[in-house]
Amino acid sequence: MSSENTLDDEDTFKILIATDVHLGYLEKDAIRGSDSYNTLEEILKYAKSHQVDFILLGGDLFHENKPSRRCLHSCITKLRQYCMGDTPIQFNILSDQTVNFNTTQFPWVNYQDENLNISIPVFSIHGNHDDPTGAEGLCALDLLSASGLVNHFGHSQSVERIEISPILMQKGNTKLALYGLGSIPDERLYRMFVNNQVTMLRPKEDQDEWFNLFTIHQNRSKHGPTNYIPEQFLDDFLDLVVWGHEHECLIAPSRNEQQLFYVTQPGSSVATSLSPGEATKKHIGLLRVKGRKMNLQKIPLKTVRQFLIQDVVLTDYQDLFTPETPHVTKKVENFCYAKVTEMLEEAERERLGCPLTPEKPLIRIRVDYSGGFETFSTSRFSQKFVDRVANPKDIVHFLRRREQKEDIKGLNLTKQLQNSEGLRVEDLVKKYFEAAEQKVQLSLLTEQGMGKAIQEFVDKDEKCAIEELITYQLEKTQRHLQGRSVTTEKDIDDEVRHLLLVKRIRTNDFNSAMNRAKAQRLERGEPDQDISDELGDVVMDSDEEPNPLPPPTRGRGRGAGSRGRGGRGRGRGK
Amino acid sequence: MSSENTLDDEDTFKILIATDVHLGYLEKDAIRGSDSYNTLEEILKYAKSHQVDFILLGGDLFHENKPSRRCLHSCITKLRQYCMGDTPIQFNILSDQTVNFNTTQFPWVNYQDENLNISIPVFSIHGNHDDPTGAEGLCALDLLSASGLVNHFGHSQSVERIEISPILMQKGNTKLALYGLGSIPDERLYRMFVNNQVTMLRPKEDQDEWFNLFTIHQNRSKHGPTNYIPEQFLDDFLDLVVWGHEHECLIAPSRNEQQLFYVTQPGSSVATSLSPGEATKKHIGLLRVKGRKMNLQKIPLKTVRQFLIQDVVLTDYQDLFTPETPHVTKKVENFCYAKVTEMLEEAERERLGCPLTPEKPLIRIRVDYSGGFETFSTSRFSQKFVDRVANPKDIVHFLRRREQKEDIKGLNLTKQLQNSEGLRVEDLVKKYFEAAEQKVQLSLLTEQGMGKAIQEFVDKDEKCAIEELITYQLEKTQRHLQGRSVTTEKDIDDEVRHLLLVKRIRTNDFNSAMNRAKAQRLERGEPDQDISDELGDVVMDSDEEPNPLPPPTRGRGRGAGSRGRGGRGRGRGK
Repeated sequence: MSSENTLDDEDTFKILIATDVHLGYLEKDAIRGSDSYNTLEEILKYAKSHQVDFILLGGDLFHENKPSRRCLHSCITKLRQYCMGDTPIQFNILSDQTVNFNTTQFPWVNYQDENLNISIPVFSIHGNHDDPTGAEGLCALDLLSASGLVNHFGHSQSVERIEISPILMQKGNTKLALYGLGSIPDERLYRMFVNNQVTMLRPKEDQDEWFNLFTIHQNRSKHGPTNYIPEQFLDDFLDLVVWGHEHECLIAPSRNEQQLFYVTQPGSSVATSLSPGEATKKHIGLLRVKGRKMNLQKIPLKTVRQFLIQDVVLTDYQDLFTPETPHVTKKVENFCYAKVTEMLEEAERERLGCPLTPEKPLIRIRVDYSGGFETFSTSRFSQKFVDRVANPKDIVHFLRRREQKEDIKGLNLTKQLQNSEGLRVEDLVKKYFEAAEQKVQLSLLTEQGMGKAIQEFVDKDEKCAIEELITYQLEKTQRHLQGRSVTTEKDIDDEVRHLLLVKRIRTNDFNSAMNRAKAQRLERGEPDQDISDELGDVVMDSDEEPNPLPPPTRGRGRGAGSRGRGGRGRGRGK
Repeated sequence: MSSENTLDDEDTFKILIATDVHLGYLEKDAIRGSDSYNTLEEILKYAKSHQVDFILLGGDLFHENKPSRRCLHSCITKLRQYCMGDTPIQFNILSDQTVNFNTTQFPWVNYQDENLNISIPVFSIHGNHDDPTGAEGLCALDLLSASGLVNHFGHSQSVERIEISPILMQKGNTKLALYGLGSIPDERLYRMFVNNQVTMLRPKEDQDEWFNLFTIHQNRSKHGPTNYIPEQFLDDFLDLVVWGHEHECLIAPSRNEQQLFYVTQPGSSVATSLSPGEATKKHIGLLRVKGRKMNLQKIPLKTVRQFLIQDVVLTDYQDLFTPETPHVTKKVENFCYAKVTEMLEEAERERLGCPLTPEKPLIRIRVDYSGGFETFSTSRFSQKFVDRVANPKDIVHFLRRREQKEDIKGLNLTKQLQNSEGLRVEDLVKKYFEAAEQKVQLSLLTEQGMGKAIQEFVDKDEKCAIEELITYQLEKTQRHLQGRSVTTEKDIDDEVRHLLLVKRIRTNDFNSAMNRAKAQRLERGEPDQDISDELGDVVMDSDEEPNPLPPPTRGRGRGAGSRGRGGRGRGRGK
């Protein structure tokens, strides 16, 4: 840790970033009940020991909209224990705090309250789990802000239009504009972006001197045509987006090549499902900002319960058994037993020397039993692991490949698009048509041809022509797909609606984006230094990997049949 | 107010006492929804403007065990607004605070927390509405104590035995021992008292120098044989008991002649039922303690919604109508309409010059329609007052005298005993036998004879003989009563059980109490100076009646048929 301190000076903001703490998750579970509480405490301890200037939370501090008494009591207690004290606060707030903190009758940052002695201010937006409800529009976080323990910001009071006013902070010579937007139903927010109802305000003077940090709690993965927020909806003056809601830890900042900002997705600090995204190692971040430069250090969380997941496709083991093998089901069960035992041993090895890690891991084995196999009794299976596994009741999850095949074959082109990472208009259009082409052998414009056609339309300023073009192609695709019965009408309708919506606001960007996409594909796999230079010096290091890393390119999503531990796409937002 | 200040000096504790704020009561009601919130604010304003040393709450700060978010938010906000600030606290705590404040991880009084700037400490026990639940035994109050806004005390962790440790406070030369016992189901606590499982600890030294103040939240009215706490269960070293839970404001301290302490029953600050007890004017108290002397000043609450209640017995108006009168039901309705209109006018007059009092009063008219009358449509009736009354839907309550008559005739001797105020063993026995004698002409021992008989038994130290005597008499009574079918077996059984229980713990006091009761009856109606001198100078004054008053003798309960506004008995605990 000694190396860090050389980075710290009076001009450097040190910010602990975390999100989706989901306090109170499974709190009645005899084994896992304290997990979320332990990890909150770990996070607060880090904040204290690293002497951060503040903590930034990306929403879903609470798992329940109405947290239990234990949950509120524990949260209040821990915040009071770790965030109050005599350490002086070294930054000032320059913006109008009555605008920034508009949910309490104490519209000022807690550390400036003369009746409270705050050592670590916490700034938080609300998530979808702890979002405001009722006539008063209060959320659980507001109890903490009324108590002076948290600074709840980013709460938009209007459903007509959202104006995001930053909290303007200054530490030494560094100016930090902290933007936040509490969770809003994705489709509504999508629509508001599309209708230009979302504005991010900027200070009038010295705009270039501010480091612009934005916290958001929305779907980043595409859960439906308008059921997520594409990164390019966000203003391109931003420097870093802290993306909450998505549970997979993808905390290393990834660059959005269109908008030229970075996105960090810290992920949840507790697994709230047994999906692959939750199995990636969980971290929080120590963000340093000096001038316009930033550095994000990954901090692995030690109190998080281990979660190992593995996929088993029974037809892959024909040397061991086939559906015709005598006592095959028993053999399969034994095979799975061995697998789980292996996973337990792996977990045990990993846990060595980690006294804070809970003893029993979460284990999930997904068994594809298609091809004529039968399922075995999971309750009997569970009993064998009841003393060793934290989730004995749902270790085994049976599925059949056929279902996946249908998925893959094209029931949801949408799903494939969900796995696309760029989320740019041209990518979406291109991928859509590529996918359609592969599946149904449509005669399409070639890529070049299509680009050219669009180019021509745009040049003529006949914007509506783009719509016509796409509509035409989509309708054609739709007819073909419907003819082959591999998709639903709704899927197509959604897709059309989405493309039209995206296009409507991005028409002006469409052509240039198209060309950029083409150029970029040529250099795919190359480090994109040309763009990162524009922002400045972004360096990643971590306690795990002490050497600075270049901003990693995002991993492509794996198919549903992938094996082994690890994440898929961005993890599911919870 | 100027006269008060002469009482205030560096040796005088100024304590604001209130109870049963029932924050959140009917909070969704369009008219009454803010009542409880407004009155909490009024109470806190008084505390601030009167510069009290602390606020003492007798439980049921919250109406719901799990208060709504609005409710918690409002409470936290108001406490932070009124109870934090720079005013220095002028008293010290001498007792072991880890014992006093055993429900948080911050076991010290909030004003000594170096991270909180408290101007008015609030001390509160929990009530039955906001009692601890769940594995952690936390109550809503604990959220406030974790936040540092309230000092929750009097929470007994054990169900086996209760040891009440006082908070020992010193201001100048005045020593105040503050005892508290949060709400416990009455029958359980009764049993624990009977089994000597309740102990009130006292400081070892200078016991006589302490003013002993006790706060309790239990039934004071007898709701069943063991479903209340008789005053004489409480230790006689106490000086003043602040009795919560009972909603009728009987705040003027009343003297318990057996235990030689005073009891003040502040009553709720919001009406949570339309019973007569809630119609008495609501007050909080400003208690001053200097040395062993006290003074309790009544402060009328101005934000409390007016509540007028009137009983109408239709057969009393034979000059106006009888069941045979043509259109009698319409006439009755018009008569009631006129009554309610009168009540509204009375409320209006009372409200003149009280800008804080809500505009629409609560109105209840109890119509006894026995004797052949019929009820009219209450919904039609309600509509006429929908703009003028806060409770339009339940203005009229129909009842029939026959039910009351049965009550009076002797279905419940218990009920009559409930109305008895002394709650001493000898009173109970005597009243029981008197009542029985009146009703069934039993041949009983004369009072003198019975006293003598008991005296003799006690002198011989044959304690069980008392039991035998009473059991014998009760069984005899029981047989007679049963023969006349005016009471139920359960009533009698309960009564027997109660008397035996009471007797078991008070045998030693029995004889002397008996004699004292006799002596006291001789001087009934006389001021009881002989006893009040023992305690010291107890003076009542109030903003309503500026002259000092002697401690009022308790009003006897009125019969159910009583008319007009006012209370009955001690009001119903809620």
